[in-house]
Amino acid sequence: MSGVVVQNIQRADLAVVDGLGACGVATVHESQERTGLLASYMRPIYPGARIGGCAITVSVPPGDNYMVHAAIEQCREGDILVIAPTSPCEDGYFGDLLATSAQARGVRALIIDAGIRDVRDLTEMGFPVWAKRIFAQGTIKASLGSVNVPVVCAGTYMEPGDVIVADDDGVCVVRRADAATVLEKARAREANEGDKRQRLASGELGLDMYGFRQKLTDMGLKWV
Amino acid sequence: MSGVVVQNIQRADLAVVDGLGACGVATVHESQERTGLLASYMRPIYPGARIGGCAITVSVPPGDNYMVHAAIEQCREGDILVIAPTSPCEDGYFGDLLATSAQARGVRALIIDAGIRDVRDLTEMGFPVWAKRIFAQGTIKASLGSVNVPVVCAGTYMEPGDVIVADDDGVCVVRRADAATVLEKARAREANEGDKRQRLASGELGLDMYGFRQKLTDMGLKWV
Amino acid sequence: MSGVVVQNIQRADLAVVDGLGACGVATVHESQERTGLLASYMRPIYPGARIGGCAITVSVPPGDNYMVHAAIEQCREGDILVIAPTSPCEDGYFGDLLATSAQARGVRALIIDAGIRDVRDLTEMGFPVWAKRIFAQGTIKASLGSVNVPVVCAGTYMEPGDVIVADDDGVCVVRRADAATVLEKARAREANEGDKRQRLASGELGLDMYGFRQKLTDMGLKWV
Amino acid sequence: MSGVVVQNIQRADLAVVDGLGACGVATVHESQERTGLLASYMRPIYPGARIGGCAITVSVPPGDNYMVHAAIEQCREGDILVIAPTSPCEDGYFGDLLATSAQARGVRALIIDAGIRDVRDLTEMGFPVWAKRIFAQGTIKASLGSVNVPVVCAGTYMEPGDVIVADDDGVCVVRRADAATVLEKARAREANEGDKRQRLASGELGLDMYGFRQKLTDMGLKWV
Amino acid sequence: MSGVVVQNIQRADLAVVDGLGACGVATVHESQERTGLLASYMRPIYPGARIGGCAITVSVPPGDNYMVHAAIEQCREGDILVIAPTSPCEDGYFGDLLATSAQARGVRALIIDAGIRDVRDLTEMGFPVWAKRIFAQGTIKASLGSVNVPVVCAGTYMEPGDVIVADDDGVCVVRRADAATVLEKARAREANEGDKRQRLASGELGLDMYGFRQKLTDMGLKWV
Amino acid sequence: MSGVVVQNIQRADLAVVDGLGACGVATVHESQERTGLLASYMRPIYPGARIGGCAITVSVPPGDNYMVHAAIEQCREGDILVIAPTSPCEDGYFGDLLATSAQARGVRALIIDAGIRDVRDLTEMGFPVWAKRIFAQGTIKASLGSVNVPVVCAGTYMEPGDVIVADDDGVCVVRRADAATVLEKARAREANEGDKRQRLASGELGLDMYGFRQKLTDMGLKWV
Repeated sequence: MSGVVVQNIQRADLAVVDGLGACGVATVHESQERTGLLASYMRPIYPGARIGGCAITVSVPPGDNYMVHAAIEQCREGDILVIAPTSPCEDGYFGDLLATSAQARGVRALIIDAGIRDVRDLTEMGFPVWAKRIFAQGTIKASLGSVNVPVVCAGTYMEPGDVIVADDDGVCVVRRADAATVLEKARAREANEGDKRQRLASGELGLDMYGFRQKLTDMGLKWV
Repeated sequence: MSGVVVQNIQRADLAVVDGLGACGVATVHESQERTGLLASYMRPIYPGARIGGCAITVSVPPGDNYMVHAAIEQCREGDILVIAPTSPCEDGYFGDLLATSAQARGVRALIIDAGIRDVRDLTEMGFPVWAKRIFAQGTIKASLGSVNVPVVCAGTYMEPGDVIVADDDGVCVVRRADAATVLEKARAREANEGDKRQRLASGELGLDMYGFRQKLTDMGLKWV
Repeated sequence: MSGVVVQNIQRADLAVVDGLGACGVATVHESQERTGLLASYMRPIYPGARIGGCAITVSVPPGDNYMVHAAIEQCREGDILVIAPTSPCEDGYFGDLLATSAQARGVRALIIDAGIRDVRDLTEMGFPVWAKRIFAQGTIKASLGSVNVPVVCAGTYMEPGDVIVADDDGVCVVRRADAATVLEKARAREANEGDKRQRLASGELGLDMYGFRQKLTDMGLKWV
Repeated sequence: MSGVVVQNIQRADLAVVDGLGACGVATVHESQERTGLLASYMRPIYPGARIGGCAITVSVPPGDNYMVHAAIEQCREGDILVIAPTSPCEDGYFGDLLATSAQARGVRALIIDAGIRDVRDLTEMGFPVWAKRIFAQGTIKASLGSVNVPVVCAGTYMEPGDVIVADDDGVCVVRRADAATVLEKARAREANEGDKRQRLASGELGLDMYGFRQKLTDMGLKWV
Repeated sequence: MSGVVVQNIQRADLAVVDGLGACGVATVHESQERTGLLASYMRPIYPGARIGGCAITVSVPPGDNYMVHAAIEQCREGDILVIAPTSPCEDGYFGDLLATSAQARGVRALIIDAGIRDVRDLTEMGFPVWAKRIFAQGTIKASLGSVNVPVVCAGTYMEPGDVIVADDDGVCVVRRADAATVLEKARAREANEGDKRQRLASGELGLDMYGFRQKLTDMGLKWV
Repeated sequence: MSGVVVQNIQRADLAVVDGLGACGVATVHESQERTGLLASYMRPIYPGARIGGCAITVSVPPGDNYMVHAAIEQCREGDILVIAPTSPCEDGYFGDLLATSAQARGVRALIIDAGIRDVRDLTEMGFPVWAKRIFAQGTIKASLGSVNVPVVCAGTYMEPGDVIVADDDGVCVVRRADAATVLEKARAREANEGDKRQRLASGELGLDMYGFRQKLTDMGLKWV
C-alpha cells in the first residue's frame, strides 16, 4: 500500500466545503449523528482559525517527511493537507518552508497527527495547523509513504477528497458523499439554535423549553 | 445517591467569595495550608479570567448531560457550575446554548472535569470555563445524576456552596465554613508580599531577606 | 552530589548566546545534527517569547524549592535558570516573587521541568517561562540540592554555562564548547533558507527545487 | 487539617467486610449503583489477590512517608492502609520493612495513590498492594500529614473505617454505614448470576434471556 | 450509520486464520509491510495467549454495552469480538457473563478499545482479552450502535471478517482479501528465520551475516 | 556526535557489578543518595528477573535499529545493552533474533527506552528486558547512530561501562567510578536492615524503633 501517489481524486464541492467550514466543528459533528471527530489531542497552534477544505491525505513513515513534498504537488486551492504517520510519532514533520510552499498552492491548513514546528512563523503567515504536539524535532528523507490513500488520522478514518472542518473545538471529518446532506442538516440546526439561544438568554430554562422537567420527574428525579 | 436535586443549599457569603476571587488561586491555596487545588489538567479555555463563586455541584453519568439542565435552575447570581462525571470522560457536555442559559441565571463560570465545546463562542461571550479537555463530542440525555451533592472534581472533594477560585493558575476550592478565615489569611499574605516584592525588585536576595543563607549553611550546603 | 553551589562557572560568550537566541529553536536544533531538544511537554506560559541565555542549573528535591534562592545569587545578566527535580514532580516551585528577584539579577527566563504558578503576574512582568505544568501547588524548604551541577532537564543532559534557546517551538540546549560553531551553521542555514522560501512562495515545488522527484522515482514511488 | 492522628475510629463490622471482600470489586461496585471505584491506574503488584478490609487513611505530603509510621500504630487485624499524597507523586513511599511492620499488626493490604517498591519481597511475603506506580524513588521524613482523616485517593473520597475491596479488577470503597446493605445486594446479585451463567453457558442468548431483542427492535435496530 | 446489525458477512478462511494466529503478531505485521498494528496500549489480561480469529466488529456508544448482546448472536466458532467505542472510554463493557455467552458461541477472544472487568474469572475460563484498561466501571443500556460495520479500533481501521492476530506483543489486523498472501509471506519469513537464529546463536554477528559492516562503513560509521 | 562506535571502554569490575545486582534497585538507589533511577515507565517484560551488568550504550535514531547490530559486536560476558532513541519512540527495535545474538555474546539483559517485541520468545529464552512499551512495530535501517557514547535513557544520564541494576522495581544506574563505594554502602544497608526487619516482624513499631514518636510530637503532631 506504500509508495503510491494517487493524482486524480474526487473532491467535495467547494461551496459545500465552505458552508461546512462556516458551521464549525460542533455543529457539523452533531449533524452527522455525532461522528467524525479526531482525537481531542489535536489542537490548533493559534486560537481563532475556522476552516473547511478537502483532504489531501499523506501516509508517512515515523520521522520521515519525504512524502510531504510529493503531496504538495497534488494540492490545489481549497485543499487541506492531512498527515498521518504509520506509527505513533511526535517529530516535527512540517515548518515554515513547507507551509510557504503549501500556501503558494492554495492549501488552507494542515492537520497532522504528529509534531509541528516554526509555530511563530506559521502564526505570522496565518497558516493554521491542528497538531498532536508542537515539537521541533527534525525528520529524515529515507522511506516511501503514499499520497491520497485512505488513512486513520488521530483515531478517525478518512479518504482523500473528504471534507475537513476545523476550529477552536478541534477537527471533524465529513465523508465526501455525505457532505451536501450534512451541510443541510447543519444549517437547519443553526437556524433552530438562534431561537433557542434568544429564549435561554431571556432567562427561560432548558428544563421548560425542552420539556425536560416532566421527563426527569417521570424517570424518578427528586427535588428536595 | 443518584437522582436528587438539592434545592436549598447554604452558600458562602458573596463578599467573602469576591474577596477570595480577587486574591487568586496561588494565594488562596497557600492560605489554607496548601490544600484545595484541582488537578493541573484543569485549564482555562482562554487566558486572563480570574473568578470567585459558590459551587453548584452536578454529578453526571459519563457522556450524559441531562442533569446540567436541572442544575441551571438551582443557580443564582454569583454561582459557579461544577460538573463531575462518575467515571472518566472527555465528552463535550456543555456549549454555547447552556452557557447562554447559565449566564442568564448569573452563573460566573463553569468548572468541568470533562470536555467543553463551542470555545470560540464562549470566549466571545466572556463565559470562562476551566476544563479537562476541549472536545466537541456530543452527549446524550438518558440517565439521572444529582445536583448539589458532594462530589470529587478533578481529584478534589467539595460540597455545594463551597467557594471556587479560578484563574490562569488553575482552580482551588475553599470549604464554605473556612471561607472567611482563609480570606483573612490570604489578605495578610498579600499585604506581606508587597514589601517583599519591592525589596527583591531592588536586588536584595531571598537568601538574605529570609535568613536562608545561615540555615542552608547549617544544613551543610557548600559554596565551592 | 547534593549540597553544593558551584560559584565560578564558565559561560558561553554572550554575543554568541544572543545570536543563537535570534536563530530560534528549530534552526539551532537542525544546526547541531538534530540534537539538544527538551521534551515536547515543555511549553511557554505565553506565546511570542524568543530567548537565548546561559544555563544556571538547579538540581532540586521533589516539592522543595530551597535551592532556587541559592541559585538566584549565582545569576547575572544574560542567564537563564534551569530547574530540574530529582524525581518527577509538577509542584509550583516558582512564582512572581522569585521572578521579581531573578529579573532584578538580570535573569532572562526560567526553564523548569515541574510546575509554575502566578502565570498572570509573570506574563505582565514579561518574564518568560517554559514549564511542564502550570500548577499552583506550594513547595517546602527542607532539603538540600545543588546549583551549577550537570542535570538532566526534560530528558536532555546539560551543564552550567551551556546555551539555552527557547521560543514557541520549545527549548533547545547547545553545549558551551559548541556554541560558536553551531551559531555559524545556524546563520548559514538561515541565509540559505531565504532563497528557498522565495522560490517556494513563487510556486516552485520542493520536488523540483530539491531534486526529490527523481530520487523518489528511483526508490519506486508511483504516480497513478 | 494537617498534623492529626485520629485514634478511635469506627470500623465496619469485620464479618461484613469479609463478605464484601469475597464478592469482589465488580459485584460490589454494581451493588452500590456503580459508585466507589478508584481510578483504573490503581493496579495490583501481583495477580490473584482478593481482599476486603477497613481503611486506615493516611494523608501524606508529596515524597514524605513520615506519617506512615504513625499510621501503622493505629492498625489492627483486618485493616487496610490507604495512602493518599496531597499533590500528585509517584515516589516509593513503602517497601518491605514497612510491609513487615504492617503485616505484624494484622494489616491485610496497602492501597497507595503513589509509588511502591520492593515488589519482589512483597510478593514473596504475600502482602498485596494496589498502587499507581512501581517506583523505587526514596522519600524523606520532614513534614507532618494526618492519619484517619477523610481523603481523596485515586479520585475517590473515603473516610477512615470505610470498607476497601480490592482484586484483579482494581479497588472499590464502600461507605461504612452502607456496608451491610451493599453486602446484601451483592449477595443477591451473585445468587442471581449463577442461574444466568448456566443458561448463557448452554448457549441461550442474552438477547433472549434478558428480553433485549424486542427492546432493541423497538428502538429501531435493524438486522440486515 | 448507527442502528444496524449486518448478519451475513464474509469471513477469511479459517485455515488461513489459524495459520496467521500461529505465526504471531510480529511476524504477521512484518509480512504485510509493517502495517495493521493496534495501539500499544492494547494489552492482554494474562500472559501466554496466542490467537487468530475473524473480526465481529461492534461499534458502541461510550459507556453503553447494549450492542454487545446483539453482536454475540452474530458470532460463530473461530470469531473474535472487536469492540470500539465512538468516543474515548475506559468503562468495563464486558465481564464474565458476556464471556460465558461468547465462549458458548465459539468466540475465541475479545479485543476492546475500552475497559474489561472480571479478569480473574476470565483468566480461569481461559477467555483471552486484549484491552485498553482493566476497569470495573459498569455500563448502561440506552443507545444503539452497530454490529459488523467498519470500525477504527485502537487507531486501526478494520472491517468485519478481517483476521485478528493477537499475542503477548499486542494485536494485528490482516484485511480479509490479503489473508492468504500474508500467511504465505509470514511462513516464508519464519522458515528464513530458523537458519538465521541458529547462526546467531552460534556467535555469528548480524553485522557479518547481513553484510551490514560494509554498508555502515560506506555510510561513514567510524570505529574508534 | 553521531556515527561513532567506541570500542575500548572501561567497565566496572564484574565482581562489584554482580554484588550490586544482588542488592537490587531500591537498596542501590538509596545507597547513592537516592539517585540513578530510570523513569518508572521502564518495566520488565516478565516478573522475577534481577540483574547487574555493564552498560553498552546505543544512541539510535527514532525507528531505526541499524546501530544495534554494531553494538552487539562490542558486547562481552556481563554486559547489558542500553538503547536510547534520540527522539521519543515506541517502535519495537529488538526481538528474538537480536536477543539470540546478544545472548550468544554474553549479554545479560536489554534496557530500552522504546518498544520491544517477541516477548513470548524472550521470556522462554530467559532474556530479561526492561522497556517503555511492548510494541511489535518494525524499524528500518537507514541512518547512523553511535555506540558507547554518553546517553540519556528514560530520563537518566549514563556513560558506557557504568553499572546497570534492574529488577521488578525498575532500573538504576551506578557511575563506574562510584561502583565499589556504592556496593559497600548497599551491603552495609542490607546488613542493617536484617535486624530491623526482625524487630518489626515481632511487632515493634517504627515509631519507637527509630525514635520517631518524640520527633513527631516535637513537630506538633497531635494524637486525638
